[in-house]
Amino acid sequence: MSELPPKTWQSTLYRVRHHKLFDAFIIIVIIASALLVGVKTYAVPAWVVQLVDVLDVLITVIFVVELMVRFLGETHKRDFFKSGWNWFDSIIVAVSLIPIEDTDMVLVARLIRVFRVLRMISIIPELRILLNSLIQALPRLGYVAALIFIIFYIYAAVGSLFFETINPALWGNIALAMLTLFRVMTFEDWTDVMYETMEIYPLSWAFYLSFIFLTTFAFLNMVIGIVVNVLEEEQAKADTDNPERSSLRNLHDEIQEVKQMLEQLEANLAANASARAEEKDPPER
Amino acid sequence: MSELPPKTWQSTLYRVRHHKLFDAFIIIVIIASALLVGVKTYAVPAWVVQLVDVLDVLITVIFVVELMVRFLGETHKRDFFKSGWNWFDSIIVAVSLIPIEDTDMVLVARLIRVFRVLRMISIIPELRILLNSLIQALPRLGYVAALIFIIFYIYAAVGSLFFETINPALWGNIALAMLTLFRVMTFEDWTDVMYETMEIYPLSWAFYLSFIFLTTFAFLNMVIGIVVNVLEEEQAKADTDNPERSSLRNLHDEIQEVKQMLEQLEANLAANASARAEEKDPPER
Amino acid sequence: MSELPPKTWQSTLYRVRHHKLFDAFIIIVIIASALLVGVKTYAVPAWVVQLVDVLDVLITVIFVVELMVRFLGETHKRDFFKSGWNWFDSIIVAVSLIPIEDTDMVLVARLIRVFRVLRMISIIPELRILLNSLIQALPRLGYVAALIFIIFYIYAAVGSLFFETINPALWGNIALAMLTLFRVMTFEDWTDVMYETMEIYPLSWAFYLSFIFLTTFAFLNMVIGIVVNVLEEEQAKADTDNPERSSLRNLHDEIQEVKQMLEQLEANLAANASARAEEKDPPER
Amino acid sequence: MSELPPKTWQSTLYRVRHHKLFDAFIIIVIIASALLVGVKTYAVPAWVVQLVDVLDVLITVIFVVELMVRFLGETHKRDFFKSGWNWFDSIIVAVSLIPIEDTDMVLVARLIRVFRVLRMISIIPELRILLNSLIQALPRLGYVAALIFIIFYIYAAVGSLFFETINPALWGNIALAMLTLFRVMTFEDWTDVMYETMEIYPLSWAFYLSFIFLTTFAFLNMVIGIVVNVLEEEQAKADTDNPERSSLRNLHDEIQEVKQMLEQLEANLAANASARAEEKDPPER
Repeated sequence: MSELPPKTWQSTLYRVRHHKLFDAFIIIVIIASALLVGVKTYAVPAWVVQLVDVLDVLITVIFVVELMVRFLGETHKRDFFKSGWNWFDSIIVAVSLIPIEDTDMVLVARLIRVFRVLRMISIIPELRILLNSLIQALPRLGYVAALIFIIFYIYAAVGSLFFETINPALWGNIALAMLTLFRVMTFEDWTDVMYETMEIYPLSWAFYLSFIFLTTFAFLNMVIGIVVNVLEEEQAKADTDNPERSSLRNLHDEIQEVKQMLEQLEANLAANASARAEEKDPPER
Repeated sequence: MSELPPKTWQSTLYRVRHHKLFDAFIIIVIIASALLVGVKTYAVPAWVVQLVDVLDVLITVIFVVELMVRFLGETHKRDFFKSGWNWFDSIIVAVSLIPIEDTDMVLVARLIRVFRVLRMISIIPELRILLNSLIQALPRLGYVAALIFIIFYIYAAVGSLFFETINPALWGNIALAMLTLFRVMTFEDWTDVMYETMEIYPLSWAFYLSFIFLTTFAFLNMVIGIVVNVLEEEQAKADTDNPERSSLRNLHDEIQEVKQMLEQLEANLAANASARAEEKDPPER
Repeated sequence: MSELPPKTWQSTLYRVRHHKLFDAFIIIVIIASALLVGVKTYAVPAWVVQLVDVLDVLITVIFVVELMVRFLGETHKRDFFKSGWNWFDSIIVAVSLIPIEDTDMVLVARLIRVFRVLRMISIIPELRILLNSLIQALPRLGYVAALIFIIFYIYAAVGSLFFETINPALWGNIALAMLTLFRVMTFEDWTDVMYETMEIYPLSWAFYLSFIFLTTFAFLNMVIGIVVNVLEEEQAKADTDNPERSSLRNLHDEIQEVKQMLEQLEANLAANASARAEEKDPPER
Repeated sequence: MSELPPKTWQSTLYRVRHHKLFDAFIIIVIIASALLVGVKTYAVPAWVVQLVDVLDVLITVIFVVELMVRFLGETHKRDFFKSGWNWFDSIIVAVSLIPIEDTDMVLVARLIRVFRVLRMISIIPELRILLNSLIQALPRLGYVAALIFIIFYIYAAVGSLFFETINPALWGNIALAMLTLFRVMTFEDWTDVMYETMEIYPLSWAFYLSFIFLTTFAFLNMVIGIVVNVLEEEQAKADTDNPERSSLRNLHDEIQEVKQMLEQLEANLAANASARAEEKDPPER
């Protein structure tokens, strides 16, 4: 991107695209688009609805132009499609271009307008980095999440087996039972669920308490695991650009120099000694 | 402040102002003012109300006198207005001086008296430092807070789009929907909200669960981020006044000295050798 | 296990057992068994129930065959019973073989099928390691858990003493009182419990608040204790394979070498000096 | 305590007191006393009540004997009263000796029996250490707790000012308002409280949300502060007995030795050179 493109219309687009005001303007348009989404949820007079619709079309046009500038301003067209965010932006804009006449599809059209707010993440680098780091943190959760899921599944199967007849709305099948257990895990009126089953199975408190202990403990370990993990990564990063370790290596190098100087001294001394020895007893005298 | 002011009435005020008992007395007055605020919320006999009103006027007078002592005791008058806390104190005291006859304004007057309790923070240095450190921690939250807001906004827009007709009190507009989502985030009767919408959209549990997972995960990352951040800052602070690193630098210096001594030795040896060589073969003999 | 077994049927079983596909196949069978458990909780047509029953028998047969392969493929039969997970697998499979005709026992039979899902943990090494590390973390909680239990017991005894007549369902005996206190600890409608007793004992809020503070504080300390513990262990692990410390030891060794070289130099110099001294004043001249 | 007492009845008591079985026996008695407290909360037949009463007297007798053994077995009687736990034990036992005939006092008598369970903490050293470390952690919370209290007080005063007429049971006076705010802080049906006030003051959601954010943020900072504090203390402890730092000091010492050896060498060389110079040009030849 450092190479200057030829002074054609493309170079103009290139300069437009990398101008600070370009991004600032698009961020303002996205915020406006978000506000329009918000305004639509209120009961507003007819003229406001019409104004919103007009602004909506305007925003769509701006987004199309912006995307074209981005694409045409790209020196190497392939690079444009390498970024997942560009794909995301293109699809969001493309879908909002489809004319929707069907009343059933109006909901989908409004949904697309809502997702345009997500463009905020694609355009602000810090949010993009943050989201990437969040997504990168997910695999760490992998096996603990699997373990928690197995715990959920087994408890849901047992719960559904025993409590189905007590309250089918909560324990009717394994999916409902898992939802109920998630509710218990968030402590949301969990005692109501428990007292209900305790009327038939007085010992069912053990079911809930063991479930709460297991999931809380597993969840706690997951959190602690992430904290330790993040701290270690930071430590490792700090270590690599740590002047202390390199200064230790410098010490090594300097002591090596000292040793070489000593060896040189030794050699000189030996040379002197042999010279003096020759001086004393010249071989051919 | 270390320079002694001339022995006038100003120097007297200066000494009064920096006396331990002065601050202690004001803290007691602030506590008394806080207690009066508390007493007023009870249904007390008429004579207590009158007493409270008298004490209230007395406290206002004390605060005015205190502020004048502070201002006049300041050697450089400009320094007084440099501190945000002095502005805060002045405004609180100034507003409580405005005579309020209007019954509508009585509520405002009582509110001002409540905010006088905040002077406790301005007068105890440890609380001031703590509050400053809390405020300094806020920017760290910046982008994660922005991300959480975007998640809230999108889910609120979607929720308001689909669930508005189900329960307008919860999903009527985007502001109500965000409040409802905050309620879901705090797990406050969130299943009641969910069960209601699941009757119409049986799959809406995915809406709530994905929201809970996203916000919990983002919030968790924010907390972990702060912990790691604080730990790193403490580490950096500890490193700068760490004797270990400086001792490493000392080692460097000492090895440099060893090398200089060796070079000196080398030079002496070379001088000796050449001297001996001259001794053997004197150039002008 | 590295020694190759003789090329008999046992060696074939050995090779089968350690083949990647063998474990992959068993994992799929366990997932299938878990899904069957889930399907059974739904109201399904009769033919599905029959299909599930057939598949259930098939899975039992596969598990029996798998276990026999595992046992016979083991070179040293004793090693098989050393692993607790093998015992677990054997018992789960053995119990599911018992023919159950009695209708009362059908529930137990279905329960056994649910527990077969736990075989997922025994077969995936990462989950096994995770569970072991979770179990190893338990003793750390020991004394804090004991302290929290004592707090619970005392508050339950006091609560049961005072509030029994107010609501026997919540405070009827010490077990119910502990369950109620656990509910208070999870903040589940705890104010309902409190407001009820505050009607008789207006100061009973102190009972609940002190309990919440004590348990929250103890719980927080437990969590912090675990975090610090885990971090220290990681630190200790990192220190043992830390190149820095070993590099420090290298520095020692190198400085020792420098000292030896200097001593050698000293000795040489002394030898030279005495040689020169002899040269100047030969003892027998 | 290491000095052996004279072989009298006191030495016998001393040996009894420091015997492992003595402590083990007392722990069993305390557990029995705790169980009796639990049993009493159930509706048990008359003979069990009588048995419990008999056992209760027996336990009181055992406790008195134990305390006497402890006191008499102490070589230096003063040391006995230096320990706060001994005072605690003595008072608990002494109070349970007071004969209570009055029916009103029966509740107090039963309460004393409950507190005997606390002796478990005084007798198990690990629990005693744990409790001490918990109590030592309290001062760290000092100023943050004060800040949270000020936040509570101000919000309670404001809440009581505005919402008193809406629901006197929740906002009637500043104490009730603080209790209500604590309930909001634990997210316990906080939306019910909010929706009620939002009917009169539609913007009162800002009151609750700002309160939740402030207290959550302050609480979070308190927790993070404790974690960082504990970690630093552990770090400091680890540093003092860190072999790395001492090995660095060793390095210093060794380099000092190298320098001394070099100075010695320098001196020898200078001596040689002057000797040779004399050899060449003897002053008195």
